[in-house]
Amino acid sequence: MDAYRAAIVHMLHDPSQGRGDTAHEYFADGGLLIDNGVVAAVGAWADIKRQMTRGTQVHQFKNALIVPGFVDTHIHYPQIDVIASFGVQLLDWLNNYTFPAEQKFADQAHAAAMADFFLDELLKNGTTCALVFATVHKHATDTLFEAASKRRMRMIAGKVLMDRHAPAALCDTPQSGYADSAALIKKWHGKDRLSYAVTPRFAVTSSPEQLELAGRLLGEHNGVYMQTHMSENQKEIDLVRELYPDAPTYLSVYGGAGLLGERSVFAHCIHLDDSEFDGLARAGAGISFCPTSNLFLGSGLFNLNRAVSDGIKVGLGTDIGGGTSFSMFQTMNEAYKVCQLRGSPLDPLQSFYLATLGGAKTLNLDDRIGNLSPGKEADFLVLDLEATPLFAHRIALAPSIDEKLFVMSILGDDRLIGETYVHGKRVYAKPLRPDTITTAK
Amino acid sequence: MDAYRAAIVHMLHDPSQGRGDTAHEYFADGGLLIDNGVVAAVGAWADIKRQMTRGTQVHQFKNALIVPGFVDTHIHYPQIDVIASFGVQLLDWLNNYTFPAEQKFADQAHAAAMADFFLDELLKNGTTCALVFATVHKHATDTLFEAASKRRMRMIAGKVLMDRHAPAALCDTPQSGYADSAALIKKWHGKDRLSYAVTPRFAVTSSPEQLELAGRLLGEHNGVYMQTHMSENQKEIDLVRELYPDAPTYLSVYGGAGLLGERSVFAHCIHLDDSEFDGLARAGAGISFCPTSNLFLGSGLFNLNRAVSDGIKVGLGTDIGGGTSFSMFQTMNEAYKVCQLRGSPLDPLQSFYLATLGGAKTLNLDDRIGNLSPGKEADFLVLDLEATPLFAHRIALAPSIDEKLFVMSILGDDRLIGETYVHGKRVYAKPLRPDTITTAK
Repeated sequence: MDAYRAAIVHMLHDPSQGRGDTAHEYFADGGLLIDNGVVAAVGAWADIKRQMTRGTQVHQFKNALIVPGFVDTHIHYPQIDVIASFGVQLLDWLNNYTFPAEQKFADQAHAAAMADFFLDELLKNGTTCALVFATVHKHATDTLFEAASKRRMRMIAGKVLMDRHAPAALCDTPQSGYADSAALIKKWHGKDRLSYAVTPRFAVTSSPEQLELAGRLLGEHNGVYMQTHMSENQKEIDLVRELYPDAPTYLSVYGGAGLLGERSVFAHCIHLDDSEFDGLARAGAGISFCPTSNLFLGSGLFNLNRAVSDGIKVGLGTDIGGGTSFSMFQTMNEAYKVCQLRGSPLDPLQSFYLATLGGAKTLNLDDRIGNLSPGKEADFLVLDLEATPLFAHRIALAPSIDEKLFVMSILGDDRLIGETYVHGKRVYAKPLRPDTITTAK
Repeated sequence: MDAYRAAIVHMLHDPSQGRGDTAHEYFADGGLLIDNGVVAAVGAWADIKRQMTRGTQVHQFKNALIVPGFVDTHIHYPQIDVIASFGVQLLDWLNNYTFPAEQKFADQAHAAAMADFFLDELLKNGTTCALVFATVHKHATDTLFEAASKRRMRMIAGKVLMDRHAPAALCDTPQSGYADSAALIKKWHGKDRLSYAVTPRFAVTSSPEQLELAGRLLGEHNGVYMQTHMSENQKEIDLVRELYPDAPTYLSVYGGAGLLGERSVFAHCIHLDDSEFDGLARAGAGISFCPTSNLFLGSGLFNLNRAVSDGIKVGLGTDIGGGTSFSMFQTMNEAYKVCQLRGSPLDPLQSFYLATLGGAKTLNLDDRIGNLSPGKEADFLVLDLEATPLFAHRIALAPSIDEKLFVMSILGDDRLIGETYVHGKRVYAKPLRPDTITTAK
């Protein structure tokens, strides 16, 4: 057994659902007991100490905060090379930058190298679970699962389905997409901590036939997820209306193909109408809110309040490469700004919930991860509360855990991540940075 | 003499004014020759090499980019403690967070410590010149000038004038504000690289009498600046209308008091009407565009295109503590996002111009700083193009200097600042960070 001693905070419930202070647990001098990759106990150090067995290794941290690993509900592993590409909105973004970058993943060596780089960036930023778009290539998806399996990460991913309105080199067919997905499901779904998501990019790049077959995959494989994009950009919405003239709404395009359910996650959802909010809520589907991407691509301001008050599951997504940071702190920073522009501030506990337990709930994984309750898989972070002089100064002035979380969400970046643990094992530790370097005489 | 060898980029003109590629100069293998704190020459290394005299120290950098120091056109030195305070918009922000924080500057030791912290943060972020709000306290303003003088920084600052709608402990009177400002002008304006800005916080917290006396200070002292806030938030605008019922516009409140001129800088200017844009343009006044603050406080989206096409001088401001980062890179990141939400992307050369020469022009200092042309004061940065693995990976894929600047503006933060030079002297160098630490056997 291993015991970790530091301040600890995690969420037990959604704070927007009126549970008040019982929505989170905070231990100023806390302990986390891990046994065989699983949380055995969490609580005040005085209590945890008594539960240690002989030989338990004690890891004690100064000026640190232990939190659950972050959950990123929307990200593209092949898009690292297009982060910070200039000047366009969604549809041109895909054609000018994304599709050329994704074509390179036809090369297996490139795909393997980028899968490693991608997962290491996630861990460096404290993200221990993600819902990931691969490319259209079966082998590139396979490679990503392999790399995640090596790291024992909990990950959901899928091969992109795309049979039109994209370069020929990136198109599958309804049948080949179906067959490749089925093979990947067979190989990876339920293996280690991995799950599969059927992944039609969006209604523009999938024919009605392909969406039908995607729906069939969901019906044929128990527990498989569905991920796609929806209502991100006005021109995209107009194009979907043109391509599916008989569909009453964008959501109904997916719903009609059997892609709307409680294991479905829709990225963006910025310009929904009432019936679409209702439809998502009734289906128990999830939304990934991707603020840095929505601002960077000029897509618009997601209506978080509406989604939450409708009871829709919402998590945060970095949406790399439309998003501008792998950091869930930076994502919380801009989520706050989106909400401020809409006239209602985002509470820091709510924001922290979205990045942890809310994300897990959006992925139907809240029985496994999302907080540090006993029995959960031990994905957690040791945050360095002295990451930078400005951060150390400012957080020292924040008396309550709410305020501390808010300071972290506004000033934080990857430097806050002192150590990342996956399934109880340390997989990342920040390099030491000496404050002064002197020469001995 | 000292010679610095690395890639170099700087702006010669405003790229929005149609000068095309002549607006900037880029040297892939460049040289910067500094003599006695002033730029002696800049150009291709092959040319610079020939201009070195015997004994010139040559500083050579690998995978680095030399740029002019950044110019921050709006920032509050007493507001470090309120960065990342939760949940409110402008007027509540002032009352709940800012005024309490500024009251602490009655304590001289606190003011002195914060002045040092503040200027060191600026230098660490590559900002070598700033237009700064102090507090209402004369001694706290004095302390800031002293700290800047010690660092040989070019800085413009002023004591805040505020005689109503603020806690009594933070209020001066029209007469005491006038006298204190005059004394500070006498002591600091034109000393070293320092200038004074008459600083009425905004029309809400200054009576008409105080604004009149502020205008008189400008008339009585040659070359003195004026800085204030304007049209940041709708409730603020309504309140100004109520307090100044006879003024046709917000700008006319300042104009009527003699506060509108070519040495005047107005922060925010988000909700201007046509006559206000015209008035600023005709007066040759400047605007400070503060995107991280405007998003954080939910103030709104500045119309940069309109201001620029009207020929108004515009610079970038971090607006610490309403802003969320000291970094001019992060400020450029969110400037881009504000412009994207308005439907027009911000060109990276234009953005870089705003952060350097455009800022200098806004402060009427473009004859002294803002680029690396011969004769300019040698404020410059050596950027570390390997600052993080992600940054190094991404910038290596950006072939043109435009694209490199864009990647820096989106992914950059203080870690990009390898070294900061003020008036030819190195005042900041990033601590080394070892990639691996091993124990010798």
